Amino acid sequence: MGQVSLKGKHLLGLQNVSPEEIKLILDVAKKMKNIVLSDDKKVPLLKGKSIINLFMEPSTRTRSSFELAGKYLGGADVINLSPSGSSMGKGESFRDTLLTMSYMGTDAIVMRHSAEGAPLYATKAVDPIIINAGDGAHEHPTQALLDMYSILEKKESLEGLKVVIIGDIMHSRVARSNIYGLTKMGADVHLAGPRTMVYPELEKLGVTVHHDIREAVANADVVNVLRIQLERIHSALYPTNREYARIFGINNEVLKLAKDDVMVMHPGPMNRGLEIAPDVAYSDQSVIQEQVRNGVAVRMAVLYLTIIGGDGSELAY
Amino acid sequence: MGQVSLKGKHLLGLQNVSPEEIKLILDVAKKMKNIVLSDDKKVPLLKGKSIINLFMEPSTRTRSSFELAGKYLGGADVINLSPSGSSMGKGESFRDTLLTMSYMGTDAIVMRHSAEGAPLYATKAVDPIIINAGDGAHEHPTQALLDMYSILEKKESLEGLKVVIIGDIMHSRVARSNIYGLTKMGADVHLAGPRTMVYPELEKLGVTVHHDIREAVANADVVNVLRIQLERIHSALYPTNREYARIFGINNEVLKLAKDDVMVMHPGPMNRGLEIAPDVAYSDQSVIQEQVRNGVAVRMAVLYLTIIGGDGSELAY
Amino acid sequence: MGQVSLKGKHLLGLQNVSPEEIKLILDVAKKMKNIVLSDDKKVPLLKGKSIINLFMEPSTRTRSSFELAGKYLGGADVINLSPSGSSMGKGESFRDTLLTMSYMGTDAIVMRHSAEGAPLYATKAVDPIIINAGDGAHEHPTQALLDMYSILEKKESLEGLKVVIIGDIMHSRVARSNIYGLTKMGADVHLAGPRTMVYPELEKLGVTVHHDIREAVANADVVNVLRIQLERIHSALYPTNREYARIFGINNEVLKLAKDDVMVMHPGPMNRGLEIAPDVAYSDQSVIQEQVRNGVAVRMAVLYLTIIGGDGSELAY
Repeated sequence: MGQVSLKGKHLLGLQNVSPEEIKLILDVAKKMKNIVLSDDKKVPLLKGKSIINLFMEPSTRTRSSFELAGKYLGGADVINLSPSGSSMGKGESFRDTLLTMSYMGTDAIVMRHSAEGAPLYATKAVDPIIINAGDGAHEHPTQALLDMYSILEKKESLEGLKVVIIGDIMHSRVARSNIYGLTKMGADVHLAGPRTMVYPELEKLGVTVHHDIREAVANADVVNVLRIQLERIHSALYPTNREYARIFGINNEVLKLAKDDVMVMHPGPMNRGLEIAPDVAYSDQSVIQEQVRNGVAVRMAVLYLTIIGGDGSELAY
Repeated sequence: MGQVSLKGKHLLGLQNVSPEEIKLILDVAKKMKNIVLSDDKKVPLLKGKSIINLFMEPSTRTRSSFELAGKYLGGADVINLSPSGSSMGKGESFRDTLLTMSYMGTDAIVMRHSAEGAPLYATKAVDPIIINAGDGAHEHPTQALLDMYSILEKKESLEGLKVVIIGDIMHSRVARSNIYGLTKMGADVHLAGPRTMVYPELEKLGVTVHHDIREAVANADVVNVLRIQLERIHSALYPTNREYARIFGINNEVLKLAKDDVMVMHPGPMNRGLEIAPDVAYSDQSVIQEQVRNGVAVRMAVLYLTIIGGDGSELAY
Repeated sequence: MGQVSLKGKHLLGLQNVSPEEIKLILDVAKKMKNIVLSDDKKVPLLKGKSIINLFMEPSTRTRSSFELAGKYLGGADVINLSPSGSSMGKGESFRDTLLTMSYMGTDAIVMRHSAEGAPLYATKAVDPIIINAGDGAHEHPTQALLDMYSILEKKESLEGLKVVIIGDIMHSRVARSNIYGLTKMGADVHLAGPRTMVYPELEKLGVTVHHDIREAVANADVVNVLRIQLERIHSALYPTNREYARIFGINNEVLKLAKDDVMVMHPGPMNRGLEIAPDVAYSDQSVIQEQVRNGVAVRMAVLYLTIIGGDGSELAY
């Protein structure tokens, strides 16, 4: 450490982040997790800093995670904005909303938006640090960072690990950020799902594509099951829920093909019985709940490193 | 004091709480009220603790009361979640929502839910302390605690006091918690309302049932008027609002039958002119507004005693 | 300074505020702006104080501004309430909502309401300090204060300045508060807009009314463009958006008639291309974004001066 700094940098995705920067975030997240696990979760690293959560799509999980991350670091100035009942409802342009939010003394804006590239646009429109909390089907970098962090709690390194991502890869920002991050860190990334959800062109990203889930899961170190986004699927990407569960759902029978110590992950919220069987979700192989905790730690690291800087060596935790 | 401790305990209702535990909460609430009344309402007793308000039914009063209670004790980490626009709207199971909330470093979850027993279920599903802020028609323990606290500000003891609860007892979690709490503390509890709202079987709980309000109010020390929950009544429990008001509404004429120093209470929000006449609601006999203030104090006591412990003797306030 | 104090006073509008009181707020706002611009925006001037934002109309801008103002001053006890999903939705009277809010240990209630006079009513119903954040078409005093503050950042004094306010004056609380404030401070106030929006009777307030925008803007020091409230206009106050923009919209051509150093203001959110041309909104003459920042500073000053008092000389910032 010591040479890499994220101070003042935006986090728009993992496509343009270096392995050293990823390593820095994951190292600092380890210290942040100690705070989350401690009896005193109030550490004044972000005291006097103002963070706005601008979520233009519904979210409980990610928004709460960022909100708590800010509060655990003493940023009592975290405010939440959502588009309903707001200026945006009054026809204000997105640029003007950003300008308004940024001129309130704001240090960072954490934003979720349905349009790919909205956070990139924001970096050009306003001064505060922009943290992408999910933009359309583009990227969701803190989710991929917490996924990698969760793997590293169990495995020595990401190098050479067989990580299988299963589901609607084409429309998943979680998948996209994981692909960028994991391949940068040397993992052997495999994708699986129906042909409507996993296109062969994805192999250009340095991954292996499967349509047979048994082939994909064979000998896997990590199986990351994506949520079927029932609320977003307008046209039929697969015939029926029952058929998807039968062919692509992860259950104990399929998992037997993976390594004995395979880790099962899911970004949540789960459709139990659809993409993942309940007994898998709550098994010893599952780290799904721990991912939630790691999400707070990773977001604390991201907020600290982008707003304050440092290389983590200054943190006692 | 000294032997009873609530540290790490859930508060699901008053049915299974001992008189000593109730006394402990009410004693500590007195110190907490001094904080609420003071110029400096920021006391760091819950510093570094994380409390999530998970309200799955609409609420302003109780939610604000718990939120302020947490904030007055220095828990800047209070976050509010409601089901609209959340993971729950995405089909997540209640268990998974609880797991997610509990894995964010959460010390306590304050929850309101339309289903009786949801908080009990939560205690089996996750680790944080569960505080019931109302579950269906089951219990609303902090409301009953603040009602008892409000009585004790005016009366020396609950022992032998005639307390009359009027309204839709069958569907009221407020009534149920009051019945459990008051009978444990030795009060003489009377219930009154139409036959559709007050069943004779309730006498098994150690109370007296009336359908004639004048008989019920006669010589009463306390009259606790329940809200007619217009928003919940699907089938007709009484003919018309006018008829309910005429037969069961509390007005000055009925109150003359009670003791001279009768106290009038209402958990709010009131339907003025329906279950309670406006001149009664704002009379000197009414402690309805003070109940709001006492609610904050009682919830501070509950959060402090369950999360931190102690017996109150360590508090200087 | 030294004789004027706002401690314990309500801020309902600028009609009944003295020039000395306005000057005090603007002077203290300058110190508050230093806090907003600093690296440490957490100053404990309102520590232990409880502020409730009671917004009964949708608002992002003003509500966030007040919320951050409270938080920057260490009031971690700021809570936000809106009528949806609240007691008000359960039929509670406005008086009872106010009573409930005021009995939670509340020092100040910041309120927005669709009815003119609602904040005045609140001062009679409850004890906390009432800050009007906009009541119907009546007043929006902190908006006018931040407008005056923004002018004074560029101009030595308000005395004798030609300030033109353009738009739907009749239905604008922003206009009304600006008229009261600016005339008190000696500015030469001009109003412009179609006859349906600017009545001749307004001249009784000591201003000059125009229906020809070129005449109004001629030689102006400040042009304050009001938002056309598309969401409120039920009947047609003007034929079409295109016609309004052509006749009353502020563009570079019209602005040439003003002084060379004319300032352009807008309370936001803007309808770009309707009441204001985009190139004007983002020009060097525009202080529209700075108004947002000044809004936070002015609201910090108002909260501090009404809740704590003082004359600003005690503040080191």
